Amino acid sequence: MQIFMTGGTIDKVYNPKNGELQLNETQIPAMLERARVTGLEVELETLMLKDSLDMQAPDREVIARACEQTRQQQVLITHGTDTMVDTAQRLAQMTSNKTIVLLGAMIPYRVAGSDALFNLGAAMAAVQCLPAGVYIAMSGRVFPWDQVVKDRAAAAFVDA
Amino acid sequence: MQIFMTGGTIDKVYNPKNGELQLNETQIPAMLERARVTGLEVELETLMLKDSLDMQAPDREVIARACEQTRQQQVLITHGTDTMVDTAQRLAQMTSNKTIVLLGAMIPYRVAGSDALFNLGAAMAAVQCLPAGVYIAMSGRVFPWDQVVKDRAAAAFVDA
Amino acid sequence: MQIFMTGGTIDKVYNPKNGELQLNETQIPAMLERARVTGLEVELETLMLKDSLDMQAPDREVIARACEQTRQQQVLITHGTDTMVDTAQRLAQMTSNKTIVLLGAMIPYRVAGSDALFNLGAAMAAVQCLPAGVYIAMSGRVFPWDQVVKDRAAAAFVDA
Amino acid sequence: MQIFMTGGTIDKVYNPKNGELQLNETQIPAMLERARVTGLEVELETLMLKDSLDMQAPDREVIARACEQTRQQQVLITHGTDTMVDTAQRLAQMTSNKTIVLLGAMIPYRVAGSDALFNLGAAMAAVQCLPAGVYIAMSGRVFPWDQVVKDRAAAAFVDA
Repeated sequence: MQIFMTGGTIDKVYNPKNGELQLNETQIPAMLERARVTGLEVELETLMLKDSLDMQAPDREVIARACEQTRQQQVLITHGTDTMVDTAQRLAQMTSNKTIVLLGAMIPYRVAGSDALFNLGAAMAAVQCLPAGVYIAMSGRVFPWDQVVKDRAAAAFVDA
Repeated sequence: MQIFMTGGTIDKVYNPKNGELQLNETQIPAMLERARVTGLEVELETLMLKDSLDMQAPDREVIARACEQTRQQQVLITHGTDTMVDTAQRLAQMTSNKTIVLLGAMIPYRVAGSDALFNLGAAMAAVQCLPAGVYIAMSGRVFPWDQVVKDRAAAAFVDA
Repeated sequence: MQIFMTGGTIDKVYNPKNGELQLNETQIPAMLERARVTGLEVELETLMLKDSLDMQAPDREVIARACEQTRQQQVLITHGTDTMVDTAQRLAQMTSNKTIVLLGAMIPYRVAGSDALFNLGAAMAAVQCLPAGVYIAMSGRVFPWDQVVKDRAAAAFVDA
Repeated sequence: MQIFMTGGTIDKVYNPKNGELQLNETQIPAMLERARVTGLEVELETLMLKDSLDMQAPDREVIARACEQTRQQQVLITHGTDTMVDTAQRLAQMTSNKTIVLLGAMIPYRVAGSDALFNLGAAMAAVQCLPAGVYIAMSGRVFPWDQVVKDRAAAAFVDA
């Protein structure tokens, strides 16, 4: 399994010097250790650490190329929620026999009440269970990429 | 989706009066709220709150009957890890077109570093993605019930 | 003992709808329950919920008047760190035989790794042990109000 | 300031291999880092890691000798709650001009809802504010050693 990190809310940490939530380093390795993942080959690579509102077309090309080049069939991508569907759409344009699942969080992993660990578990199970395609694992569900939108007012992913 | 709670490590809480970890009430509703589950019909029922080492054959009949009687096709069961495979084996004897996924935790939800929320996410995704059958979602993987054992020394579920 | 809440980092919570840390409600009652405070009469009053950079002279008059009017001799004030010393200075101008201790947090109570609970413990002990005066309990120390400054670069309170 | 660690509930961690809470290593350095203690010279020494029900007279002699020998005037001792008062009584028999504050926790630091960080903050402030003597900082209060008992049914320290 390959996990690509791209940033987003899931990885934000609090900076006590300026009072801001920032993207300094990924929390995914700490989450995986906590998940007690055993017997899986998991390759990790941080492609970028960006708020997904700051992602541009070239960023999505970086992600697409990484998905194409990995030798793994199962690919997880951590991503900000605001443009997660846009990236999924770009990835769906690839001719690929890979299973790709995007995930993120509505509340940072390092903030009380975070959904991050749940979503990582959901995505990791989904990528092992689903056929080739591009999916989003959020809000307790696993959506094909073209059947989901983020409902910003509800802070949830819902049927498109 | 139906979720049956039966107890196990996942639900243990610390009792400051005697210094013991105890099964007083289920933590699953709190975990689901935190997971921000949206757009799913989830029915919850606590069948028992037992350490799985204390489960006997009649307990497994209670669980099997509950699985048969629920009108939901997707069934999650929270369960202690020590005899999770035994219960899965009993459930596999039913003629059923349901997808049943068992999950638990190596560290209680209310203890630092718990894998509980990850495992609940994994099981909830698995039950939505898999065909009828009985599965176990633990240690970052989704196992068919007859291909998994608990490795007590490693505190992990591994290939049988 | 009287506890006045005025806001600041200690009380900030994450809003998943806009990704901001906000002051919506105080976390102090939850912290006190967790502290298992027993055998003390504690009166709580929220005077305001402000980032201390947004506090003006009239806000400090509100706090000073509340300190004068409470019938308690021991007064805690939760406060943002950036102007905590300014408020302490204003309170020191009162003729008072009360012991007043200000506290806050460098990391919100609801963010991983928070110092909030430690600081509340320190302030609550200090107010019970010290003679009349105005003090600041931060960074593991208890300072007389006129012997302390916030070192913003270090995110710590140090000797003036 | 000197901090002696002796064990007790505050330091217990969950062992996923046997499902027990155990005393393997002290959590106090992690708690101090989180407390953001700044500008204090703090010396740490683990004297033992015992459940206080297992402490015997020789253990108390070890603690007493350590208190006598440290060059610090301010001494904190982390300790199990069940015999904390007994150890305090032994330490009060020393002729000493030191301020000694004992603390512990009703819920382990690594369990949700722990009072450990609050109690450490309270004890650290108390040891800086109080004259020579032996004290216990628990349940939100600072008690002289001979005016406090543990109320086991309430899981709280109360007036003797």
